[in-house]
Amino acid sequence: MLNLLPSEPRAALTHLLRWSLLASAVALLAGAASALFLFLLQRATALHGQHPWLVWLLPLAGFAVGWIYLRIGSQVEAGNNLLLDEIRDPRATIPLRMAPLVLGATVVSHLFGASVGREGTAVQMGGALADQLAHRLGLAAEERRLLLMTGISAGFASVFGTPMAGAVFGLEVLSIGCINYAAMLPCLIAALLADQTGLLLGIHHTHYAVAWIPPLSAWTICATMIAGVLFGLTAMLFARATHAAGAAMKRWIAYPPLRPLCGGLLIALAAYCLPVQAYLGLGLPTIMAAFQQMLPPWDFFGKMIFTILSLGSGFKGGEVTPLFYIGATLGNALAPVLHLPFSFLAGLGFVAVFAGAANTPLASALMAMELFGAEIGIYALLACVVSYACSGHTGIYRAQRVGQAKFST
Amino acid sequence: MLNLLPSEPRAALTHLLRWSLLASAVALLAGAASALFLFLLQRATALHGQHPWLVWLLPLAGFAVGWIYLRIGSQVEAGNNLLLDEIRDPRATIPLRMAPLVLGATVVSHLFGASVGREGTAVQMGGALADQLAHRLGLAAEERRLLLMTGISAGFASVFGTPMAGAVFGLEVLSIGCINYAAMLPCLIAALLADQTGLLLGIHHTHYAVAWIPPLSAWTICATMIAGVLFGLTAMLFARATHAAGAAMKRWIAYPPLRPLCGGLLIALAAYCLPVQAYLGLGLPTIMAAFQQMLPPWDFFGKMIFTILSLGSGFKGGEVTPLFYIGATLGNALAPVLHLPFSFLAGLGFVAVFAGAANTPLASALMAMELFGAEIGIYALLACVVSYACSGHTGIYRAQRVGQAKFST
Repeated sequence: MLNLLPSEPRAALTHLLRWSLLASAVALLAGAASALFLFLLQRATALHGQHPWLVWLLPLAGFAVGWIYLRIGSQVEAGNNLLLDEIRDPRATIPLRMAPLVLGATVVSHLFGASVGREGTAVQMGGALADQLAHRLGLAAEERRLLLMTGISAGFASVFGTPMAGAVFGLEVLSIGCINYAAMLPCLIAALLADQTGLLLGIHHTHYAVAWIPPLSAWTICATMIAGVLFGLTAMLFARATHAAGAAMKRWIAYPPLRPLCGGLLIALAAYCLPVQAYLGLGLPTIMAAFQQMLPPWDFFGKMIFTILSLGSGFKGGEVTPLFYIGATLGNALAPVLHLPFSFLAGLGFVAVFAGAANTPLASALMAMELFGAEIGIYALLACVVSYACSGHTGIYRAQRVGQAKFST
Repeated sequence: MLNLLPSEPRAALTHLLRWSLLASAVALLAGAASALFLFLLQRATALHGQHPWLVWLLPLAGFAVGWIYLRIGSQVEAGNNLLLDEIRDPRATIPLRMAPLVLGATVVSHLFGASVGREGTAVQMGGALADQLAHRLGLAAEERRLLLMTGISAGFASVFGTPMAGAVFGLEVLSIGCINYAAMLPCLIAALLADQTGLLLGIHHTHYAVAWIPPLSAWTICATMIAGVLFGLTAMLFARATHAAGAAMKRWIAYPPLRPLCGGLLIALAAYCLPVQAYLGLGLPTIMAAFQQMLPPWDFFGKMIFTILSLGSGFKGGEVTPLFYIGATLGNALAPVLHLPFSFLAGLGFVAVFAGAANTPLASALMAMELFGAEIGIYALLACVVSYACSGHTGIYRAQRVGQAKFST
C-alpha cells in the first residue's frame, strides 16, 4: 500500500496543514473586520432611519469622503478592482489603509443615505488584511495570490453568512467564464471560518423565507428561463449604466470630491421631492418585503437609479446588496406575469441579477441554497446560468477579464 | 436603453434558444436510454438476487462480452475515456454501437454479479447518442464538443436523479483543476430535462436519508477534514489500483476475452468460499444500510477489492456507484473514531470518495445537497474539496488531463 501512496499524498497533507493555518488567520482577521463593519452599519442604518433629514448632509459627507480618498486613499481608490489586478498581476502589497478607509467611507455612505452595498467593503477589508499577512510572513508571489483570494472569500462569506458562496465567489470573480481550483481549499477554509468568527462575535444575518417552491414542470422551467433572461439583461443594464455614470462624472467634474457632492445633492433633492426613502441605504426591509408581499413593480428600477447615482458619483460600499434588492423586487414584480409565487421569484431574482452582474453563477446558486434551502437549487442554478449567459461580457468589476467567452458569436 | 443593449443580448438569446433545442433533444435521447438501462438493471439485479448461482456463469459471461467487444467494439472499448478524448481533440463521430454495447455489457455484468457501477454506461449512451445527433445535424467541431458534453451531463443526471451534479460533472470531468463555463447552459438544460425525461418514463431513484447533521463546531470541522483526507486517500488507492490491475491483466493475458473470464472465475471462487454476496453487483442495499445501521468496518475494503477485480479484468459498467458504496461504508466505519453520527459520515463518504476519484468536487458537493438536503452542504463541500486535494493527480478517468495542479509542490 505504501508503494501505491508515494510522495504525492505527503505533499497534499503539507499543503492542507499549511493552508489550514494561513486561511484560519485570514478568517479571524476578515471575520472580525466584517463583524465590526456589520455592527457599525446597523447603527448607521438605524440612525438614518430615526433622522431622515441626515440625507441633506449627504453632499457634504460625500465631499469629505472624496477629499480623504484624494489625500490619502488614491492608491486604494480602485477597491475591488485593485484586488483583482493584484491577484492577476502581483506588484506591490496593498496598503493596509484600504481597510479602515473603505470601512469608514461605507458607514458614512449608509449613515447619510447613499444607496450602496457592503460586499465591496468586506472584500476589500479581507483582501487588505490578507495581503498584510502575506507581506509580514514574506510569502512568495504565488502564495500571496492565493492568500488574497482567501481574503476575498472570507470577507464575502462573513458579510453575507454564506460560506459556500463566499468560497466559490473568491474563485469565480477573477475572470469571466472559467475557474481554477488551486485556491479552492484555502478559500473554502477561510470562508467557513470567517463566517464562524463573525457569528461568534455576534453577527446576525437577515433570514429570507421562500414560502413555496413549485414542483418542476414544463412551465416552471420555461418561466424560470424567461425570468433568467430578464435578470441577466437587468444585470447588464446595471453594470453598463454604473460604468457610464462614473465615466460621465469624471468627464464633467474634474475635482474628485465634487463628484459625490453633486451625486449626494441629486439624491437629497430626489428624497425631498419624491417618496423614495425605500431606495436609500442598504434597503434590507424592502428586500424582506419582496418575500412577503407584492410590491410596486417599479421598485427595482427606482433602486437601480439611486444605486447607479450613488456608485457612479463615487460613494463607497458595494454593488451586491443593491443587486439583491433589484433582483428580489424585479422577481416580485414578475410574479403575476409569469404565474409563479412572488417569494419564489424574489428568491431567484435575489441571486440571479447578482450572478449576471458579477459573472458568478455557481457562487450565486450556492448562495440560494444556503439562504433558501436545497429545494430551490435547480431553479436557482438555471436562473443564474441563464442570467450569466445573457448579461454580456462587462460586469460590475472592471478588472474582471474574459477567460472564456460565454458563447461563440 | 437600446443603446445600452446592443448586439450582445441578441447573440445571447440566439445562443439560448439554439442550445435549449439542441440540449432538449440530447436530454430526450439520454433520458430515455437511462430509463431503459435502469429498468433492465433492476431486473438483472433482482434475477441475480433470486439466483445467486448465476455468479458461476460470470466467467463465461465475461468471455462473451470480451469477445463481442473484440469483434465489433474495439473502437468504443475506451468508453468514457474515448468521450473525453473526443471532446478535447475532436476526430471522428463516436460509433452509435457504443450505446447498445455498453448497455448490454453492463446488464450482463450485473446479472452475473460483477461489482461495477452504472455512470459509465449512462454517460457513454448519452455521449454516443449526442454525437450521432451532432453528426446528423452537421454541427461544426466546436458545437460538437459542446453537444458531447451535454450528453455526458444528461446521462449522469438521469441515471442518478441529480441534475445539478450532472450539469457540473459534464464540465468538471474534462480536466483536473479548472472548469470552463462555455458549456454550462447547454449542460444544465440537458441534465435537467434528461432527469425529467427519466422520471416521466417511470425511473425511481433510491432515497438516502442522513438522520441528523451536527451543528458546526471546531470538532465537526476538524473531523470532516480528517475524514476528507481518508476519503481522498481511498479514492487515490482505488484509482491507482484499478489502473494497475488493468495493466497487469493486459501484461499477463494477451487474448482480451480471457481477461474477464479469469476475473470472473476469481470472483466466482471468492463468492463460493467467502460471505461476500454484498460486494457483488451494484450494492444499493448495503449503501442504504450504511445510512441506517453500523456495518462491519471492512466493507469498504471488500467492495474495493471486488470492484478493482471486476473493472481491472474488463467488465463494463462504471466506477461511481461502487465509489458511493466504498465511501458510504468507510464513512459509516469512521463514525466511532470521529465521534460523529454514522449516517452523516456515510453521506459525506458517499460523495467525497467519488469527488476525489473523479476529481469533481463541485459536482459531488451539489450531489450531496440534491440527495441529502442543503444543511449538509458546507460539510460536503469541505469533505469533497479536501478529498480532491488529497487524491493525487491520477483519477479514475485516464483521459482526464491536469488543467491546473492541485497545489504547488
